[in-house]
Amino acid sequence: MIKAGIIGATGYAGAELVRILARHPEVEIKWLGSRSYIGQTYASVYQNMFQAIEGPCLDDNIAELASQADVIFTATPQGFLASALKEEYLQEAKFIDLSADYRLKDVQVYEQWYHISHQSPQFLEEAVYGLCELNREDIKKARLVANPGCYTTCSILTAYPLVKEGLIDTSTLIIDAKSGVSGAGRGAKTANLFCEVNENIKAYGIAAHRHTPEIEEQLGYAAGHKVTINFTPHLVPMNRGILATAYASLAKKPDGSLPGGPEVRAAYQKYYGEETFIRILEPEVFPETKWVEGSNYVDINFKIDERTGRIIMVGALDNLVKGAAGQAVQNMNLLFGFAETQGLEQVPLFP
Amino acid sequence: MIKAGIIGATGYAGAELVRILARHPEVEIKWLGSRSYIGQTYASVYQNMFQAIEGPCLDDNIAELASQADVIFTATPQGFLASALKEEYLQEAKFIDLSADYRLKDVQVYEQWYHISHQSPQFLEEAVYGLCELNREDIKKARLVANPGCYTTCSILTAYPLVKEGLIDTSTLIIDAKSGVSGAGRGAKTANLFCEVNENIKAYGIAAHRHTPEIEEQLGYAAGHKVTINFTPHLVPMNRGILATAYASLAKKPDGSLPGGPEVRAAYQKYYGEETFIRILEPEVFPETKWVEGSNYVDINFKIDERTGRIIMVGALDNLVKGAAGQAVQNMNLLFGFAETQGLEQVPLFP
Amino acid sequence: MIKAGIIGATGYAGAELVRILARHPEVEIKWLGSRSYIGQTYASVYQNMFQAIEGPCLDDNIAELASQADVIFTATPQGFLASALKEEYLQEAKFIDLSADYRLKDVQVYEQWYHISHQSPQFLEEAVYGLCELNREDIKKARLVANPGCYTTCSILTAYPLVKEGLIDTSTLIIDAKSGVSGAGRGAKTANLFCEVNENIKAYGIAAHRHTPEIEEQLGYAAGHKVTINFTPHLVPMNRGILATAYASLAKKPDGSLPGGPEVRAAYQKYYGEETFIRILEPEVFPETKWVEGSNYVDINFKIDERTGRIIMVGALDNLVKGAAGQAVQNMNLLFGFAETQGLEQVPLFP
Amino acid sequence: MIKAGIIGATGYAGAELVRILARHPEVEIKWLGSRSYIGQTYASVYQNMFQAIEGPCLDDNIAELASQADVIFTATPQGFLASALKEEYLQEAKFIDLSADYRLKDVQVYEQWYHISHQSPQFLEEAVYGLCELNREDIKKARLVANPGCYTTCSILTAYPLVKEGLIDTSTLIIDAKSGVSGAGRGAKTANLFCEVNENIKAYGIAAHRHTPEIEEQLGYAAGHKVTINFTPHLVPMNRGILATAYASLAKKPDGSLPGGPEVRAAYQKYYGEETFIRILEPEVFPETKWVEGSNYVDINFKIDERTGRIIMVGALDNLVKGAAGQAVQNMNLLFGFAETQGLEQVPLFP
Repeated sequence: MIKAGIIGATGYAGAELVRILARHPEVEIKWLGSRSYIGQTYASVYQNMFQAIEGPCLDDNIAELASQADVIFTATPQGFLASALKEEYLQEAKFIDLSADYRLKDVQVYEQWYHISHQSPQFLEEAVYGLCELNREDIKKARLVANPGCYTTCSILTAYPLVKEGLIDTSTLIIDAKSGVSGAGRGAKTANLFCEVNENIKAYGIAAHRHTPEIEEQLGYAAGHKVTINFTPHLVPMNRGILATAYASLAKKPDGSLPGGPEVRAAYQKYYGEETFIRILEPEVFPETKWVEGSNYVDINFKIDERTGRIIMVGALDNLVKGAAGQAVQNMNLLFGFAETQGLEQVPLFP
Repeated sequence: MIKAGIIGATGYAGAELVRILARHPEVEIKWLGSRSYIGQTYASVYQNMFQAIEGPCLDDNIAELASQADVIFTATPQGFLASALKEEYLQEAKFIDLSADYRLKDVQVYEQWYHISHQSPQFLEEAVYGLCELNREDIKKARLVANPGCYTTCSILTAYPLVKEGLIDTSTLIIDAKSGVSGAGRGAKTANLFCEVNENIKAYGIAAHRHTPEIEEQLGYAAGHKVTINFTPHLVPMNRGILATAYASLAKKPDGSLPGGPEVRAAYQKYYGEETFIRILEPEVFPETKWVEGSNYVDINFKIDERTGRIIMVGALDNLVKGAAGQAVQNMNLLFGFAETQGLEQVPLFP
Repeated sequence: MIKAGIIGATGYAGAELVRILARHPEVEIKWLGSRSYIGQTYASVYQNMFQAIEGPCLDDNIAELASQADVIFTATPQGFLASALKEEYLQEAKFIDLSADYRLKDVQVYEQWYHISHQSPQFLEEAVYGLCELNREDIKKARLVANPGCYTTCSILTAYPLVKEGLIDTSTLIIDAKSGVSGAGRGAKTANLFCEVNENIKAYGIAAHRHTPEIEEQLGYAAGHKVTINFTPHLVPMNRGILATAYASLAKKPDGSLPGGPEVRAAYQKYYGEETFIRILEPEVFPETKWVEGSNYVDINFKIDERTGRIIMVGALDNLVKGAAGQAVQNMNLLFGFAETQGLEQVPLFP
Repeated sequence: MIKAGIIGATGYAGAELVRILARHPEVEIKWLGSRSYIGQTYASVYQNMFQAIEGPCLDDNIAELASQADVIFTATPQGFLASALKEEYLQEAKFIDLSADYRLKDVQVYEQWYHISHQSPQFLEEAVYGLCELNREDIKKARLVANPGCYTTCSILTAYPLVKEGLIDTSTLIIDAKSGVSGAGRGAKTANLFCEVNENIKAYGIAAHRHTPEIEEQLGYAAGHKVTINFTPHLVPMNRGILATAYASLAKKPDGSLPGGPEVRAAYQKYYGEETFIRILEPEVFPETKWVEGSNYVDINFKIDERTGRIIMVGALDNLVKGAAGQAVQNMNLLFGFAETQGLEQVPLFP
């Protein structure tokens, strides 16, 4: 039984973390940090947890929390943990940061896309990018895990085996992603009101979304060279879910031919065949976000278009689970030697 | 470890049962019956369960199933089990029927509201109405459990303590209920198409809905006299959830005064204070269906209007969980001596 | 061609007014008042009106506006017009107020339900309650029209003929109403975020909603005596629409019998048979909000439950059209002698 | 005043046509053809039109209809009009076909993508592709107009000026499109039930959707050479609306530089600057489907990504209006010399 603290427990990702940890057999929640609701009972902020979670919201006292907890999750705005983290805290507790602060190795890239000055670049080297299926062994040994973004988890996992195996031309990679509204957080903004979002779809952050460099960095490691992509997110009138539709030209083989379906499928099997949380769907069955809702699964499939020589890859996940809190718990399981799936066995809710 | 079979496993209630049983530590699913999909893998019908549920859909062979299973769930159309059930099956397996076939003790009332001739009225006497919080001890000893309807579970539980304690005038009871669309099932009907239901609300079955006599019968037992009510269901553009708003005049006490809030609250506490799955919310906090989604909870609260001398009671549940499959599993837990909450600990999903 | 000004043009009701007036052949919009967006083009706030509406948002200068406009619409918070209105403005322009400031004749009732001190009670006597179908002749002669609330329009019109004709016992009248989210306005509140409202239904303002005394006052005029009701609003995950489900015991006739369907239908026909915007649906066809969306129609029907002696009345309208802006334009048409339906002929949008 | 007949009047596109024509000052609807509902009143099938449209649904008698009507709209399944059309009908009435039967000039391409044998290829040459903004003059003289598909109208108009001006490399063109559910029609299919679609997004018809060759043919005319693209449609949980997000590499100019924003904007202005129904949004304002709902507008904008040398174009329309019935009426206006915008002035509904 380990002790966990959460800073930023009243955002949607924080609340999902509370919901998952509330039923995790190895975890006791010690600290529900929420600057906005200090002193109110947590269940009064999230009535779904009434009688399931006791206790009030606390402040952000990381020093105190580090001395009490074995693991600290920060589901906080960009820049928060970068400003607050100290070596001494890392010696007391493991950190899993759901913000972007330690995801990008290059501090200049961070500062350019986030327009924030990074206050603790000395931890960037040490931080492990917490995409469990790709970095499992490094995560096990980490003190500081940078939990990936929701769009990025979906985009990277969808394309990774093909990039790694050189089956696609990464210079042609375009990712058109669609997200439910919970990704926008619980802040009271006009743009996220029901009437503004419902019965509506729009693109946003075109050619400028902050998850772009994160996808590029990780796929770059897989490719062995710099990768530059187009990434376009869209807002869809639903609570949860991310669907990534990715396009790329197949890479010609030395004999001038293109890889075929079996070869592509084999690549996915090679990297994901043993993975519990990645489901390669059967041929001609394509991911739908509803099929993963409430679960830690990522569903993936692809189609080759022989007319154009392109492959269309499709991936889906629940942005609050595998795209945030579920993956954070998966990282925690790795850090503490629990079964990797513990607390995450939820079958997707349908309908 | 018991063996369970499900007839009607590909309707929404059947699928929810599969989803819950898939993670129940004491149950092995032996039989996924679905006349429409015989031979197809179950996961191809409900892709959310891909890699979580193996095996094909089977036919409706109850004789064979009864010989293999310890418990049989029937999530089938009205009249199916009434036509198929035999004494010998009941000697082999316990039955939990999610249809209305054994809910009403009076066969004439059944035939009048359902327009079906009942084929096995001899089991009506024996069948136990499976509203766990009210009939717990009888359920434990039953062979045949009539699992309550979704509207009825919500309506009865919301009003029961006040009827039982004589705090309201049952002749004034009006229940205005609102349901998500999954209650209408997975049949392909124009009226349930996305575009017909979305951005729309309507009443239906006004003064004629089949759950009316079921509510009346159960509240009649509580009252000790015949109860006749108005019940009006509405269709709401959401997948899951039932909200019941119930109105009744408070019953005058011998001194002419009306019961007050503390007295009403005490009545709810008296009957539900120890119940895990019934949450009496704090004063001025009223149920919302989203707060119970995916869980077996029923949330209840009330408000007294002194201007009119009426009480307004509000209850909410997830129609597929506490309103169908969850309650069926709760009944199974009672039948087999498992912890009543086993497999049902899911914290509601929000958002 | 008359000149119209709108104060509060960037709320949802104000924007609907702009949308309707933009196509009204007798109106020129002279003033788009919006304190929050002064100087921005109106179309940048409501991109749906790009190239359909020119010009910037202006401030709230009523004195200036009154000197320029023939009619002034105020779609403003409660208390705004009560604080700003002066006799001299009324001599220059007609006022149609979409707030509650002049709806209730009794200033004490206003202050009790709205918790605002009324700043110009001297105009209450003169103000005409702008429910066109009931007060048509008075509206034609008015200077100041109090445009009814959305819930109230629906509730009053649904019950009015039966109250007027004495067919129901008003002491038993209960109105359970359901509204789309646009009724909550465009203010950025957490409770109205997409993720909080979507897949959710809740009651609110139970026994305390401000539209209650407005319904009671108007039905009281019809009844010829004081009427006290229960009114419970609910929030439904859809943009537009109000559905009112009303319950009442039928009033016994001198011979002890209850009114039957034909008698009730005749009452509706008597009052609404000639009305363009009120559609009494055919027997057994009940209103759905989608059938009136975007139009100025109110759909109404009823069902008698002989088991309980009650009648269930159902009404539906679009809260932004007949429940706000459409009725305001209908009032304007009456004030200026235009055809009453002008600018309001829109057929409902479906789906 | 012309006389119009509609075959297929009870599908969603047919009903939208009825809705628009009901308020068109130059049109009398003579024939509401619907094989499924013969003899029922039209308003009983679409209650939104109660009291707005009189008369029953009639059969498909084109011979009779052609003798009575000036214009015949066919909102019918693929292959219907191809089987039924005769020269003599074309001599009596103008035809506007909302199906795909006469959209593709090459009968082999039609048969390959639609898997139907074309029964009247002799009319293919004569048929005019009814994309009003591109073929206005030819439409005016036509007897048979092939009304474009919803995805195609949006996709073609979004890319056309850049293809025509040679600003993009058409071999890199990828269109990722998102549609509301009304595009799937009113047929009772499980896949289109509320609970299957709601809270869900999916891609479908990947590399195989029938609108692909239609887009390719029309853009090919603009390019002056064969164009082959990737087109991927997605189903979004909303009633109406199509959003097309299109990607292409900018074409290098002789000096090796790429076209810039002003040059691209000038191209859009050149072709659409005078068009009423195409709105080029202001820089950095991107189309949202809600902003065009219920209207005949197409909203378009673009962004250049200098990192990748690509342009991202975004277009939005209402699939039932500009994507079907609205454009059909626009074609009718052209055919009969009415003002092109007549009956189509509706300002988009928001929210």
